[in-house]
Amino acid sequence: MKLKDGDVLVFAGDSTTDAGKSATPDGLGSGYVRLVRDALYAFLPRQNFRVVNAGVSGNTTRDLLERWERDVAACDPDVLFCMIGINDVWRHFDNFDPKHAYISEDEYEKNIRAVCDKAAGVREFCLMTPFYMERSRVDEMRAMTERYTARLRRVAEERGVALLDMQAVFDEYMQGRPGQSICWDRVHPGNAGSMLIARAVLRSLGV
Amino acid sequence: MKLKDGDVLVFAGDSTTDAGKSATPDGLGSGYVRLVRDALYAFLPRQNFRVVNAGVSGNTTRDLLERWERDVAACDPDVLFCMIGINDVWRHFDNFDPKHAYISEDEYEKNIRAVCDKAAGVREFCLMTPFYMERSRVDEMRAMTERYTARLRRVAEERGVALLDMQAVFDEYMQGRPGQSICWDRVHPGNAGSMLIARAVLRSLGV
Amino acid sequence: MKLKDGDVLVFAGDSTTDAGKSATPDGLGSGYVRLVRDALYAFLPRQNFRVVNAGVSGNTTRDLLERWERDVAACDPDVLFCMIGINDVWRHFDNFDPKHAYISEDEYEKNIRAVCDKAAGVREFCLMTPFYMERSRVDEMRAMTERYTARLRRVAEERGVALLDMQAVFDEYMQGRPGQSICWDRVHPGNAGSMLIARAVLRSLGV
Amino acid sequence: MKLKDGDVLVFAGDSTTDAGKSATPDGLGSGYVRLVRDALYAFLPRQNFRVVNAGVSGNTTRDLLERWERDVAACDPDVLFCMIGINDVWRHFDNFDPKHAYISEDEYEKNIRAVCDKAAGVREFCLMTPFYMERSRVDEMRAMTERYTARLRRVAEERGVALLDMQAVFDEYMQGRPGQSICWDRVHPGNAGSMLIARAVLRSLGV
Amino acid sequence: MKLKDGDVLVFAGDSTTDAGKSATPDGLGSGYVRLVRDALYAFLPRQNFRVVNAGVSGNTTRDLLERWERDVAACDPDVLFCMIGINDVWRHFDNFDPKHAYISEDEYEKNIRAVCDKAAGVREFCLMTPFYMERSRVDEMRAMTERYTARLRRVAEERGVALLDMQAVFDEYMQGRPGQSICWDRVHPGNAGSMLIARAVLRSLGV
Amino acid sequence: MKLKDGDVLVFAGDSTTDAGKSATPDGLGSGYVRLVRDALYAFLPRQNFRVVNAGVSGNTTRDLLERWERDVAACDPDVLFCMIGINDVWRHFDNFDPKHAYISEDEYEKNIRAVCDKAAGVREFCLMTPFYMERSRVDEMRAMTERYTARLRRVAEERGVALLDMQAVFDEYMQGRPGQSICWDRVHPGNAGSMLIARAVLRSLGV
Amino acid sequence: MKLKDGDVLVFAGDSTTDAGKSATPDGLGSGYVRLVRDALYAFLPRQNFRVVNAGVSGNTTRDLLERWERDVAACDPDVLFCMIGINDVWRHFDNFDPKHAYISEDEYEKNIRAVCDKAAGVREFCLMTPFYMERSRVDEMRAMTERYTARLRRVAEERGVALLDMQAVFDEYMQGRPGQSICWDRVHPGNAGSMLIARAVLRSLGV
Amino acid sequence: MKLKDGDVLVFAGDSTTDAGKSATPDGLGSGYVRLVRDALYAFLPRQNFRVVNAGVSGNTTRDLLERWERDVAACDPDVLFCMIGINDVWRHFDNFDPKHAYISEDEYEKNIRAVCDKAAGVREFCLMTPFYMERSRVDEMRAMTERYTARLRRVAEERGVALLDMQAVFDEYMQGRPGQSICWDRVHPGNAGSMLIARAVLRSLGV
Repeated sequence: MKLKDGDVLVFAGDSTTDAGKSATPDGLGSGYVRLVRDALYAFLPRQNFRVVNAGVSGNTTRDLLERWERDVAACDPDVLFCMIGINDVWRHFDNFDPKHAYISEDEYEKNIRAVCDKAAGVREFCLMTPFYMERSRVDEMRAMTERYTARLRRVAEERGVALLDMQAVFDEYMQGRPGQSICWDRVHPGNAGSMLIARAVLRSLGV
Repeated sequence: MKLKDGDVLVFAGDSTTDAGKSATPDGLGSGYVRLVRDALYAFLPRQNFRVVNAGVSGNTTRDLLERWERDVAACDPDVLFCMIGINDVWRHFDNFDPKHAYISEDEYEKNIRAVCDKAAGVREFCLMTPFYMERSRVDEMRAMTERYTARLRRVAEERGVALLDMQAVFDEYMQGRPGQSICWDRVHPGNAGSMLIARAVLRSLGV
Repeated sequence: MKLKDGDVLVFAGDSTTDAGKSATPDGLGSGYVRLVRDALYAFLPRQNFRVVNAGVSGNTTRDLLERWERDVAACDPDVLFCMIGINDVWRHFDNFDPKHAYISEDEYEKNIRAVCDKAAGVREFCLMTPFYMERSRVDEMRAMTERYTARLRRVAEERGVALLDMQAVFDEYMQGRPGQSICWDRVHPGNAGSMLIARAVLRSLGV
Repeated sequence: MKLKDGDVLVFAGDSTTDAGKSATPDGLGSGYVRLVRDALYAFLPRQNFRVVNAGVSGNTTRDLLERWERDVAACDPDVLFCMIGINDVWRHFDNFDPKHAYISEDEYEKNIRAVCDKAAGVREFCLMTPFYMERSRVDEMRAMTERYTARLRRVAEERGVALLDMQAVFDEYMQGRPGQSICWDRVHPGNAGSMLIARAVLRSLGV
Repeated sequence: MKLKDGDVLVFAGDSTTDAGKSATPDGLGSGYVRLVRDALYAFLPRQNFRVVNAGVSGNTTRDLLERWERDVAACDPDVLFCMIGINDVWRHFDNFDPKHAYISEDEYEKNIRAVCDKAAGVREFCLMTPFYMERSRVDEMRAMTERYTARLRRVAEERGVALLDMQAVFDEYMQGRPGQSICWDRVHPGNAGSMLIARAVLRSLGV
Repeated sequence: MKLKDGDVLVFAGDSTTDAGKSATPDGLGSGYVRLVRDALYAFLPRQNFRVVNAGVSGNTTRDLLERWERDVAACDPDVLFCMIGINDVWRHFDNFDPKHAYISEDEYEKNIRAVCDKAAGVREFCLMTPFYMERSRVDEMRAMTERYTARLRRVAEERGVALLDMQAVFDEYMQGRPGQSICWDRVHPGNAGSMLIARAVLRSLGV
Repeated sequence: MKLKDGDVLVFAGDSTTDAGKSATPDGLGSGYVRLVRDALYAFLPRQNFRVVNAGVSGNTTRDLLERWERDVAACDPDVLFCMIGINDVWRHFDNFDPKHAYISEDEYEKNIRAVCDKAAGVREFCLMTPFYMERSRVDEMRAMTERYTARLRRVAEERGVALLDMQAVFDEYMQGRPGQSICWDRVHPGNAGSMLIARAVLRSLGV
Repeated sequence: MKLKDGDVLVFAGDSTTDAGKSATPDGLGSGYVRLVRDALYAFLPRQNFRVVNAGVSGNTTRDLLERWERDVAACDPDVLFCMIGINDVWRHFDNFDPKHAYISEDEYEKNIRAVCDKAAGVREFCLMTPFYMERSRVDEMRAMTERYTARLRRVAEERGVALLDMQAVFDEYMQGRPGQSICWDRVHPGNAGSMLIARAVLRSLGV
C-alpha cells in the first residue's frame, strides 16, 4: 500500500483496535493505533496524516456493519484497515444465554463481503485477520478462529483486497513464548501485542 | 470429614480462595469461602462456626509457607482446607523476567510436604488440587498443571491426607461448556466456579 | 415445577429480590437471584437459561402492578417467581406521614389476584410468601405479616398457583438463632437469608 | 443535678452517644450530645460549658472500662452521664462466632459497679438505662435488656447514683407509634430518638 | 396557633430555612425545620404531621413570590410560617454590581403584602421577622434590618397575621454573648441559632 | 524600607497571610503574599527575590511566637513583615469554651515585644496593624481591635520599628463601601482586600 | 480611555483572557481579568463596575467572531478590550492535521476588521496585541506573531482604535529574564504575566 | 552494543526517562522506556530481559549522582543508558530564586565524569545527549544546551563511552516540523518524541 501526504487513515475493528479510546482525550486509545500514529508523526515529519480509531470494544462483524456509515464512511478514509471477527468466534465460548444471536461462519463470510462492498471506493483498503494467542492448533477456540479466518482469506482473495495475516505474526511470536505471556485471555494484545500489530501495519505501508 | 459445633474452619490458598477479601469488610472475600460460610450459617442454625479466609492473591506454595505461622497456624484451625499450586505453574506461562525464581515440580512436591508437616496437628485437614479450566488435555498449561497435581496426589496418598479433586469437578462442568464460559483466563473461578468449589467443600463436610 | 433447556426465569419482587441490582453490572444484584443463576449455570452446564432480576427496592404490590408490563411481561418469562408484600405491611410500622397511602389487607389480596391474572399465560408460575424474621408469633409486625400472607395463601389455593412458604423456611432457621442474627431489621435477608431462599427456589425446580 | 457556669460535661456510652462523631469536625456527632450542647449554648448564653462526646460505636461495658482513663477521666468532668449496655445484650442476638466473649448479666453488673467506682469523684454523675425500642414486653431482646437494666438500677440505688430511665421515655413514645418508626433495628435513636434523649438530659439538668 | 393531627406544615424562607436541604436525602436541611419536625415527631407520637422545607438560599421577597405557587401553594399547607427579608437588606451591603436590582423598603412592604394575599386561605399563618445577630442597634445593617422589619410588623398588624419576633429572640441571646458567637457573618443561625428559632416556633404551636 | 537584589522576604501572620497556602503547590497561598511576589517578579525583572509565606490560619501572637524559630527565623529573612493580632481579639467574640486561654491586651503587648526581640537582627522589619472591616468605630469588636492595635503602635514607636497602618487602608476603602462588601465576616480580606494589602506593602518597599 | 461609574467592562479573547474561568464560581478566571476587577473594586470604592470575562481557551479570531453576539455584544459593554490572535499563529507550529483550517495573515486582518465593525458602537474600545514571550526576534514563531500583529496595528491605526502593545510590555520584562521564566510554552502568562497585563490595562484606564 | 539473553537494562535520567512512572503499576512510565521494553519483549520472544526505569522527573546531574547507588547500581545493570542534563540548563531559564544552586558547565562536566566512574563496571554503557526541541541554533537555551552537551561529548570520547546523539535525532525531525509540534515546552518528548528516542535506543542495540 502507498501512503500519500495528507492521507486520512482509519482503523476499524473491535477492542483490539479500540484499546480504551474513550479514556484518552484524543480518542486514539492506548493500543496499536496510537503506535502507528506516533510512528508516522515521528518518522515522517515532512508529511502529515490524520489517523482515526474506529474500533469499538465487543464488536462483531454485525455490530461493525451497523455503525459503518457514521463511524467509518463519515471519516472519508484514504487508507482503511479493518480487523474484525474474534468476537464472532468468542461468544461461542463465553456466552450461553439461550436468546443470544450467535454469528455463524456463513454469516461471518457474508458480513466480510459487505465490509468489502462498503470499502469499495477507498484508495487503499486492507483486511487484517483476527487472531487467537494460543499456539496449539488443536485448541478448540483456535480451531474455530481459523475456520472463520479461512472465510476471510477467501473473500480477500476473490475481491483482490490486501490482507495482513496477524495470526502468522503472533504464531511467530509464540515460537518463543506462550500466548498467555501477552494476555491471560489470549485475545487482548496489550502493550507487547500492540507493538507487533503496529509493526505489521507500518511495514505494509512501507514506513 | 466431621464438623463439630464450635469449629474454626480455615481455607488457605491463592486468589481462588482470596477472592478480593481485602475489599469486603468481614475479610471473607466474594468467592467460595463466603458461600461455604453462608451455607453453614444458614443451613445449620443450631451450630456455630468461625470461618477464616487465609488465601492471598498471587501466592505460590513458597509464599504460603512463608506466611503459614501468622496466617494459618495463628487461627488454630479445627478444620483446614488448602488449595495451592496454580501460580507455581502459571508463572512459567506469563512471567519471563530472567531473574524470576520459578518453582519446579520437585520444589512444589517438597513445599506440599512442608504444608502437610505444618498441618499435622489439625483435626480435619484436606488438600484440594489446583485446577485449570481447559478441557483439552493436550493444552500445555493443563498438562503442566496435571504434572504438579500428580505430585500433590502422591503426597496426599503417602501422608493419608484427605483430597478433593477440583480438576475433576471442573472437568465434569466442561463436558457441558468450555472453561472460558467461567473465566477468560481459565484460572479464576468467578461466581459459577465458586459455586462448584463450595458445593464440593460442603459435600466433603457432610452438609 | 419443571425447568426446560432455554427457559427464561424471572424473579419479581421488592428489595429482597432486588438486592442492589443497580450496583452490579449484570443487573442480577447480590442476593438470592444471583445464587440461583450461578447454581443453574454451574450445576447444569448442559442446559442454558436466561435469568432476570425484576425486583425493585421498596416496592409494594401496588408498585409492582404499575410496572408489571415493562419489567415482567416484557421479559416473556417461561418460569416466574413472585415474592411481594412485606412493604405493604412495613409501612404501617415506619411511615406516619398523614398523606401516606397505606395498603390494607383487602387491597393486598386484590393486588395479588391481579398479579395472578397477569401471570396467567406463564408456563411455570410460583408465588412466594413474604416473611418476617421474628420468631415470636405475638410480635405485632409478625402478626400483621401473617394476616397478609393468609390472604396470599388463599388466592394461591383458589387459583391453583404453586406456593413457596418462605416464612416456614425462616421459622425453621429461627429455631436455632433469632432473626436479628441475619439482619437487624428482620426484613432484609443478607447473605445467609439469600442462601435459604435460593435453596428453596432451586429445590422447587428440582435442581 | 446542678449545672454551674464553666462546667465540663462528658457523655460516655456507645453508638447512641457517638452518633458518627468522627464524621463531624467538632467531634460532637449528630445525636443527642449535639442537641444538648446546642441547647445549653443557645438557652443559657450567660453561662459557658464544655461538652464532650465520649461515646464509641459498638462499645460494651467491657470496652468502655478499658478506655475510661484516656477518654473519660482525662476530660476531668464536672458532670458525667453514662449510658451503656445495649451491646452487652445485643451480641447475644446477632453474633454467633463460637469464640465470641459474651457479657453475662453478672459481668454487666460488675462492670457497672466499676464504672461507678471510677466516677466516684465527679460532682454530678448520672447513669442512663440502655433501652430497646420494642413495645412488646415479651419480645426476647426486650426481656433480656430489662434483666440487664434491672442490674443497673440495683447498682444505682445501692450507690446512690442518679438514674435516667430512658426505657420509660421510649415506652411513653411507643404508646403512640411502634419502635420501628424511629429505627428499623430498634436500637439506634436517629433524629427523633435523640430529641427524646436530649430532652430527658436537659430536664435532669433543670434547663 | 393550633396544630391538628394530620396537618401539613410548610416553612417558607431563605437560607436560614433552607439550611442545606439539597444535601439531605429527605429535603429537610439541617436547620430549624428539622428540629421542629423531629420534636413534633418525638414529642407528639399520637399525632402525625407532614413537614415541608420551602426555603431557598439567597432568596429575597421577590424570589419567594416568583416561586410561591410551585413551592408553597402546591403543598396545600394547613400551617404556614414565612421568614423572609434579610437578603433584601443584605444585598445593599455586599453587592455593588451597577446592574443589580436592589429591593427598597417600599418594595419589601409591597412584597410582604403579596405574601399575605397568597397565604390568605391557610388555616394557620405566621410571619417571622428577619433578624441580624448584631447587638449594637446603631450598626448600619442592623438599623436597615429594623426599618424593613418595621414594615413587616405594620403589615402583620393591619392584616391580623400572627407574628414571631425573631430579632427579639436573638436580642435576648445577645445579652449573654455577641452575635459572632453564633456565626461570623451574623446572619446564618447554625446549630445554636436554629435551636432558638425551633423553640420559638414550637412554643407558638403550643408544643 | 529598601529592597536589595537577592533579598529573602518573609511574611509572618495568621489566615490573612496564609490565605490557603497548603492548597497551593508553591506554598504562597492565594492572598496578598502571592500578589506581592508576582508584582516583584513581574515589575523588577532585573532583580530576584525569594518570598516566603509564614502565615498560619487561626494563629494568635502566642501561636506565632511558639513557631517563630522554625517558620520565620529559619528562613533567614532580609525583609520581614508581621501582621498578627486579630485572632487575639476575635476569640473574645466567638469562643466561649470555659477552658479557653484568652489573650489579654497586656499579653498581646508582651507578645508583640517578644516578636520585636526576635526580629532584632533583620535588616528591614515592619509591623502591620491587624484590622477589622467595620466602619462603625463604636462596634464592640472594632473597639477592642483598636485597643490592641494601640498597644502595637506603642511598641513599634518605642522600638523604632516601621509600621503599616492597615486599619487606615481599610477605613479609606470603607468610605466608599461597607466592610461586608469585602467579606461577610469583616476579617478575611479575600481578593479585593488582598489587593489593598499588597499595594500597601509594595508602596512601603518603593515598588 | 475614560471609566465612568456604573460601566460594564468586557474582555474578549483566548486562553490568556479565559484563564480557567469555568473553574471559578464567579466566571472571572484566575488571570488578568480578575486582577483588573479586584483592583477597580479595591481602589475605586466610590464607583461600581461590572466586569465580564469573555475569553475562551483555544480561540482564534474566527472562533471569536462566531460567538461575538452571544458572548460579547449581549453584555452591552461600555468598555471593551480585545486581545486575540496568538492561536491563529500557534496552530502553524503545533497542528499538522492535513484537514486543519489554518488562518492566514490575510484572514487574520480581515477578522480583526470584522471585530472593529462589531465593536463600532462601544464607548471605549481597545485592541491589545497578542504577544509571544521569546526575546529573540529571529525566533520563527515570534517572527510570525509580529507579522500578524503588524496587520492588527495597521487596522487599529486606520480605524482610529486604541491599541495596547502587549508585546512591548513583555519585551521590557524580557530585558531582565527570558520568557520561559514566566511560562515554559512562552504563550500563557500565568501569575506574573497576568500582573503585567493587568497593570497595562489599568494604566490605560487611568487607575 | 550487544544484548545478551537474560540482561538487565537500566535507563537513568530525568523526566524524559521517568515519563510518569509512579502512575503506572509496573513502574515503567509511559515514555520511551516502555516502548523499548515492549519492543524487546515483542520482537525477541526467544530471549528475556529485565528493563528498569531509573529516571526521576526534575533531576539534574547532581540529583542523579546523589541517588545513583540505590536507584542504578542496586539494579546491577548489564546494559545502562544515561540521558541527563537538560535540567542543569533549564533552571537558568525558569528559576530565579536568589538562593538557587545553579549547575555550571564545569560542574556538569565533573558530574558526567562521576557518572562514568560509577558506571565503570557495567558491560554495556551508553551516554545519551540531552536535547532541546528548537531548530534555531541561535536560540539562547539551545545554545546553552549545546555548550553542555559539548562537555558530555568530550567526556564520552576521552572515556571511550558509547554515545547516542539525541539532539541530532530531533534535528532531523525538525527539518520537517518545528519542535513545538512535539511539545509546547520543547523539552518533554511526549508520544512522538518517545518513539524517536526508543528507535535510537533499539538501533544502538541492534534490534
